[in-house]
Amino acid sequence: MATVVAKFGGTSVGGAERIRNVARRLIARKEAGDSVVAVVSAMGDVTDELVSLAKQVSSDPPDREMDMLLATGEQVSIALLAMAIHAMGHEAMSFTGPQVGIVTDPVHTKAKITEVRADRVREALSRGNIVIVAGFQGSTPDGQITTLGRGGSDTTAVAIAAGVGADVCEIYTDVDGVFSADPRIVESARKIDVISYEEMLEMAASGAGVLQLRSVEFARNHGVVIHCRSSFTEEPGTIVKEADETMEQAIISGVTHDTSEAKVTLRDVPDRPGVAARVFTGMADANVNVDMIIQNVSEQGTTDISFTVPQEDLVRAKKALDEVIAELGAREWSVDDSVAKVSLVGAGMRTHPGIAAQMFRTLADAGVNIHMISTSPIRISCVITADQVVTAVRSLHESFGLGADEVSAEVSPACGGGE
Amino acid sequence: MATVVAKFGGTSVGGAERIRNVARRLIARKEAGDSVVAVVSAMGDVTDELVSLAKQVSSDPPDREMDMLLATGEQVSIALLAMAIHAMGHEAMSFTGPQVGIVTDPVHTKAKITEVRADRVREALSRGNIVIVAGFQGSTPDGQITTLGRGGSDTTAVAIAAGVGADVCEIYTDVDGVFSADPRIVESARKIDVISYEEMLEMAASGAGVLQLRSVEFARNHGVVIHCRSSFTEEPGTIVKEADETMEQAIISGVTHDTSEAKVTLRDVPDRPGVAARVFTGMADANVNVDMIIQNVSEQGTTDISFTVPQEDLVRAKKALDEVIAELGAREWSVDDSVAKVSLVGAGMRTHPGIAAQMFRTLADAGVNIHMISTSPIRISCVITADQVVTAVRSLHESFGLGADEVSAEVSPACGGGE
Repeated sequence: MATVVAKFGGTSVGGAERIRNVARRLIARKEAGDSVVAVVSAMGDVTDELVSLAKQVSSDPPDREMDMLLATGEQVSIALLAMAIHAMGHEAMSFTGPQVGIVTDPVHTKAKITEVRADRVREALSRGNIVIVAGFQGSTPDGQITTLGRGGSDTTAVAIAAGVGADVCEIYTDVDGVFSADPRIVESARKIDVISYEEMLEMAASGAGVLQLRSVEFARNHGVVIHCRSSFTEEPGTIVKEADETMEQAIISGVTHDTSEAKVTLRDVPDRPGVAARVFTGMADANVNVDMIIQNVSEQGTTDISFTVPQEDLVRAKKALDEVIAELGAREWSVDDSVAKVSLVGAGMRTHPGIAAQMFRTLADAGVNIHMISTSPIRISCVITADQVVTAVRSLHESFGLGADEVSAEVSPACGGGE
Repeated sequence: MATVVAKFGGTSVGGAERIRNVARRLIARKEAGDSVVAVVSAMGDVTDELVSLAKQVSSDPPDREMDMLLATGEQVSIALLAMAIHAMGHEAMSFTGPQVGIVTDPVHTKAKITEVRADRVREALSRGNIVIVAGFQGSTPDGQITTLGRGGSDTTAVAIAAGVGADVCEIYTDVDGVFSADPRIVESARKIDVISYEEMLEMAASGAGVLQLRSVEFARNHGVVIHCRSSFTEEPGTIVKEADETMEQAIISGVTHDTSEAKVTLRDVPDRPGVAARVFTGMADANVNVDMIIQNVSEQGTTDISFTVPQEDLVRAKKALDEVIAELGAREWSVDDSVAKVSLVGAGMRTHPGIAAQMFRTLADAGVNIHMISTSPIRISCVITADQVVTAVRSLHESFGLGADEVSAEVSPACGGGE
């Protein structure tokens, strides 16, 4: 008998018939002998509707009250799902995040989970219930309702899985799993059967949207096995777990891309100690999430600094930069929001030299110009022009032989699990 | 500086502009120097919409999950109201029932408040906030979310007022206060300025819909002064408080009526000890709220028993009666759901004999036949045919001189406060 945590997103519970489908799926697991916990998001467009209500009464609603408002969305879903399970003759109990001991810091609208007291889930499971937990929400130690921000429900699921010592945390989604590239761009993209936390983190951080970075981080820190799979089929999806000797070590697991960032360049910044610190302290204070940072070599006492930020942070970034620039006396700064980041991720690149060279050559052959480069031990990312992203992803996917039926001429074919 | 608890119903918060109106009203009180707590219901039709969602997934949803679902309605209202106050430049904090220490028994969908731990309200008030509390909800000592059933938000308001020692609990409604009769039926009905808990309880119990019985009971038990007033005007409404020598003692405060009940008659029931007990134990076990009970004198070893029950309990009542009748061997039973109850309420009738006689004569003169009679020390109720209720109420209102400009020939004109 296994303990399973299954997370369903807003689309999966968007309407009575879909809720019944989720109920049937959970009941089947229960009848197969498993202990079952479901974590669910708000139904379909409910969160958007709540945000729209808030905008009708306030142009700038306080974060604490937004959390109070938005937390109702998941609460509706859990009650309805528990009712649907009851109507099918099985026991179910729903719990809000606060009820189930999801304790967070007090940063409203993007709180972080600090503790999970899963006693009530365990107790309800032990009495034979299918337990339904509201994703995306928790409460501070002094009982304020908080929400977890983007990717919150996935993180709730992983946290509950850690709390009850679940054998697996299943994240149900509208795709079949994690792919070697976005299947909407690369027809031959291959589903990855098993991937390590480390690679999944790099893929999530560089644009693979199927799993949220923070939930993968939480899973790695607590040793929770994630199974990312489709809610439309019974087929297995992608398992994310600790790398071990049974796992095929892919040289390259996948190609990811991200078009949500903008590139900021500061020109002729005085080249003296503390300048970079001043720039990025300013960004941090403005709560701007800086991704890649490049500083070019100094020339006649000044230097150029480029970095990427999420486009949605641009307004805040610009405001903060105006101050920084005035203080530092840089010549000018510019923003380019028609950029894309394309990345190669693979644990095997640590031990295979030449991957970077092959990546740059492939992009050059495809006529793609590289603006910025950054690397980690298992990832190489290039910032390019946004309208070349499809070309870049396809060329790299082919060049590294990542497709379902391909064998690369240049890299050994031991890529991922293969189907 | 007074401490005020103000309760607003679903209509008062049904939309952004109405929420802003409530916000302005609360801010005005705050600026006048008062400490202000608002208790609000779910917006307009939200509760109905949630019930309809539940019906889509289950024909018989568990009460615990209905509470989980319905509690979201008030939570949306409190968040939006707090946002609206913030947008007008004032501090506000919203709290759910569970957060604010509304502790209840575990009877889901109609829980009773067992304790109010109002520390958080007091603390938030002391920091200068307008405090917004979700009506209608609470939680059990072990943290299950409950709802209070009909009249729940009024009861929450009174409970919070008791908890913080408020000077007054204002119940805002769509009428100007408590009237000497329903103004939709009696044009000359007079607003009552001050009324005792005792009379208000009798009026609420016998059909005056403006205040819920249980909230008046709670107020009496905890000495909370209620001010029932209109949300459309600044005019004072009706004060409900302990009777004291400063209060004018009306002989008759008002005429009430109630068309929501049905009359059940059991014929030829064996007249032996324990029969009535068996009948009404059966009703109680079926959770049927019996109001008036009449047992006629015995004739040849059998008797007739009549009683009234809410029409909404009729299905349950009939089911229970089938069993009881089979067991007792009564001849037959019948239901008449086209009845109405008309009542006279007044603390002064204790010391004024002849009120009952005048009531029956008035009804007879108006051609109204009386089916059943029951009395309390300060109330006389008659069950009549439903289509005669308007005639009955108008005749009694006139006969006892309750109108705004009337002086009764038969009863002294010291009725209520007068305007």
